[in-house]
Amino acid sequence: MKFTCTRENLNKALNIVGRIINKNSTLPILNNVLLKTEKGRLKLSSTNLEIGINYWIGGKIEESGEITVPTKLFANFISNLPNNNIEIKSREDILNIKCGGYKTNIKGLDPKEYPLAPKLEMEPIFKIKSSDFKKALSQVLPAVSNSESRIEITGVFLNFSELNKNKITLVATDSYRLAEKDINLKKDNINKKFKDILGNVNSIIIPKDTIQELIRILGENEEMLEIIISENQILFNFESASVISRLIEGKYPDYKQIIPDKFESQITINKNEIINSIKVASLFSNISNNSIELKLLNSSKNLEISSEISDLGNNNTKIPAENINKNLNILYNHKFLLDGFNSLNGDKVFLQINNETLPTILTSAADKGFIYVIMPTRA
Amino acid sequence: MKFTCTRENLNKALNIVGRIINKNSTLPILNNVLLKTEKGRLKLSSTNLEIGINYWIGGKIEESGEITVPTKLFANFISNLPNNNIEIKSREDILNIKCGGYKTNIKGLDPKEYPLAPKLEMEPIFKIKSSDFKKALSQVLPAVSNSESRIEITGVFLNFSELNKNKITLVATDSYRLAEKDINLKKDNINKKFKDILGNVNSIIIPKDTIQELIRILGENEEMLEIIISENQILFNFESASVISRLIEGKYPDYKQIIPDKFESQITINKNEIINSIKVASLFSNISNNSIELKLLNSSKNLEISSEISDLGNNNTKIPAENINKNLNILYNHKFLLDGFNSLNGDKVFLQINNETLPTILTSAADKGFIYVIMPTRA
Repeated sequence: MKFTCTRENLNKALNIVGRIINKNSTLPILNNVLLKTEKGRLKLSSTNLEIGINYWIGGKIEESGEITVPTKLFANFISNLPNNNIEIKSREDILNIKCGGYKTNIKGLDPKEYPLAPKLEMEPIFKIKSSDFKKALSQVLPAVSNSESRIEITGVFLNFSELNKNKITLVATDSYRLAEKDINLKKDNINKKFKDILGNVNSIIIPKDTIQELIRILGENEEMLEIIISENQILFNFESASVISRLIEGKYPDYKQIIPDKFESQITINKNEIINSIKVASLFSNISNNSIELKLLNSSKNLEISSEISDLGNNNTKIPAENINKNLNILYNHKFLLDGFNSLNGDKVFLQINNETLPTILTSAADKGFIYVIMPTRA
Repeated sequence: MKFTCTRENLNKALNIVGRIINKNSTLPILNNVLLKTEKGRLKLSSTNLEIGINYWIGGKIEESGEITVPTKLFANFISNLPNNNIEIKSREDILNIKCGGYKTNIKGLDPKEYPLAPKLEMEPIFKIKSSDFKKALSQVLPAVSNSESRIEITGVFLNFSELNKNKITLVATDSYRLAEKDINLKKDNINKKFKDILGNVNSIIIPKDTIQELIRILGENEEMLEIIISENQILFNFESASVISRLIEGKYPDYKQIIPDKFESQITINKNEIINSIKVASLFSNISNNSIELKLLNSSKNLEISSEISDLGNNNTKIPAENINKNLNILYNHKFLLDGFNSLNGDKVFLQINNETLPTILTSAADKGFIYVIMPTRA
């Protein structure tokens, strides 16, 4: 193999494929990145056996070939080079790198032993703009469960049973709060044969780690992302990269039933005001359940956020709120409440409340199709 | 006590006094900050019994008094408030804080129990511009030893035996490398009675922690810093703050004898080029002693930086060097070498070399009075 590229491109590629390296792997070759010339570009691949990432960079190929080298060492080395062209050459198991006055040899391992990510040869089900998908994933991610006792909620639920209505839905929950995002796709971006390809599959659960990697890799741009789905794997394809991941097996809970469809109060508040108030109140939150209290004050038309730890002190903050129609005191976990408001876009946000035991809904005037549902805590 | 100030000033003060809080202290009151009205300002004080910091902020005093409150809680609280005026009131052991719609009470402890930092009532020995002293301390700090077996080199040596020549010297060493900085003071900034005040004391050793705190607090400005010295303590006084610290007892090593005064070669190189080359070479540095090799190449007039770990690979980098007059190979610890070049200012730096066993000196055209001495390692 002999390949020339810019230091900048190679550095970016290594940052992207390098993060999923599993340090505790018993298979030494999984610490390595696979370099391979492919269709006029250099492909960098890494896998931790759950997720596989390919990233392609442009350059000049003088000799095709492949090699694997330790990812961390190679990435550290490239990150310290000046921004020049880099010449990469492999001879047997040695990778030879030249850049200006720098000459380095790195010992590699046989690429034949590198575990190949399975290929999904099916057609994409739908396409979506990178930035839209990234934004939607970021909104639901905080609500994903970390509990290993209920594996089915440790991922993001992607429901495409209404693809015939051009709609998909992303859902995440840890049973204390739930985030749901409806996305309307353009008809042209949906594969007309989706029913034939999907068969009986009308939803999947994508692992949290995969969502995190995807958010990191997806750009804030107009590039279209293709999504290919099989029964137990998902492939995200874009111009310069692809991410393949296993799916979580199991039945996602029937969450729709817990979302109330009527409210006794819908109050309007400023997002930054409530976020700051929650942060301050959290310093005195209940030690056993992390709760702080929200009080609807009907006479002053204020929302009061308060908390107390008798040994430390207490805090009360009043912020203006529109449409308060009764007095009510509700307790919430401050972290879950903060995650919810942080997930909302725009300044003007709504709290939809029934009472101190039924779920509360957080929404924003700026968010189409996104709701964050939170269960009150008990005193 | 009743005091009004800006949130910005209070926040800054808490960041400065809060860092030295010793979390493992068995004396609970040491987790607290002492607030006290003093001469029209609010004084914030903290101590870990080794270092004490006072910081003063301006504001409106309506009622004088004092109280101590948990530093971390108070600082977290203030950092989350909006940038408004803050009203602070104490009633017995409760600190009451109001800021816009926020009302908070924090439980305090009796200020009478707060350990008082000893007062140094002597006159200052000398004054120096904050930014100059900060820069000098930052240059020698990396060479301070962390070894607890030789307590006398775990601080910065301040030698003022040549104060009659308007000169002080800062020194740090860990016995593998040494940094020395001469500072010329203005005659007007030296107390004329310094001999009477100092008596037999002509040098002290300031603990590393104190130097680190001081670097953090000292601004990049023209403000003059007053230095007051007693036999076992040092006090740094400036407009808005004071830092008092114990000194390290012991005899600083007679380091002058190891600094060579003649060199067989003095080569000139570019600082950023050598720094990048060392970073790259460090990836393949000798596992047992962290060494990399510097080679003076007389024929090509290059400096070659090289390293090898047989299982991983190797690296060779050539950079241009002026005034090479012979071939020579020397091994250095890459970390100590990197610290040295990072301590130098300017682009054009010098390596003063005798041979592969005698100390090498690093200096810069831009640094007056600063040298960094490094011992070669052995193969």
